Amino acid sequence: MGSGAWLELGKGLWFILPAYIANLSACLFGGGRPLDFGKKLSDGRRLLGDGVTIRGFIVGVLAGAVVGLGEGLVVGDPWKAGDGFILGLGAMAGDAVGSFVKRRIGLERGAPAPVLDQLDFFVGAVLLYYLVYGWHPPGWVLVGLAILTLALHWLTNVIGYLLKLKEVPW
Amino acid sequence: MGSGAWLELGKGLWFILPAYIANLSACLFGGGRPLDFGKKLSDGRRLLGDGVTIRGFIVGVLAGAVVGLGEGLVVGDPWKAGDGFILGLGAMAGDAVGSFVKRRIGLERGAPAPVLDQLDFFVGAVLLYYLVYGWHPPGWVLVGLAILTLALHWLTNVIGYLLKLKEVPW
Repeated sequence: MGSGAWLELGKGLWFILPAYIANLSACLFGGGRPLDFGKKLSDGRRLLGDGVTIRGFIVGVLAGAVVGLGEGLVVGDPWKAGDGFILGLGAMAGDAVGSFVKRRIGLERGAPAPVLDQLDFFVGAVLLYYLVYGWHPPGWVLVGLAILTLALHWLTNVIGYLLKLKEVPW
Repeated sequence: MGSGAWLELGKGLWFILPAYIANLSACLFGGGRPLDFGKKLSDGRRLLGDGVTIRGFIVGVLAGAVVGLGEGLVVGDPWKAGDGFILGLGAMAGDAVGSFVKRRIGLERGAPAPVLDQLDFFVGAVLLYYLVYGWHPPGWVLVGLAILTLALHWLTNVIGYLLKLKEVPW
């Protein structure tokens, strides 16, 4: 790849950063009351499950807005906080939709759903941003970021395994 | 959407059809010896599992080539069989990669992996075609086709449930 391509990827990463931090913050500081208030659907399964919490959702959206604000201050445009808010909201919504799909298919909380688990927040963030602002990074940048996201997850898990924080390297 | 957009989606469907039929054919006419010859990796799990078979793989690739040839005869260019071959090969490779990921994560054959299960062949076909020919349909067409693929799977499962061929509607 030429330096222009790397620059585009870097700009894509800068764009999506609020969604990344939103997702991470929701994982770290979530917990408490579930967003679905324990509601079950006619299939006898939870609407979303205990993994999607009100606190996690709010923390995620706020984290997105804060990162967006930080990025905005760097480039001299604090209104970027709005972009971060939308990306955080999209990330949390995507995460909830991912849980909804897993519940409908009969997967319990924590049961692995490779690709869906790692990319639901990413797709949700890009999609909501596109719906609101009518813009998305070039398709190949999105593909590159998606691959990077999968790779980072995998790397995190391997490191957790090597540090004996996890029992299996995935 | 304007009529131009629908036309583009239709052209995308025509493009990806060999991959669809390859995937369907492998499901219907697969079976026999597994492609991984029963080999296990160091994690104690199968390389691919019993779901990916030599016959299914070959049938899928051939089906892709045959559909490509049929499309080629329609447009007066029998060499389109080569396109179909590549799409069929990519679809089967994507399917195998999906099974590889599921095995590494500890999911047994048949355990649902929503999105991955339905789109692995699609991503494989588009990716291999792009690597060979340097072309892919516009990004939004690919997104539309991916959504259509998920919807068709879901619809098939609901019909199977209504016909009492399946126990659950997914």
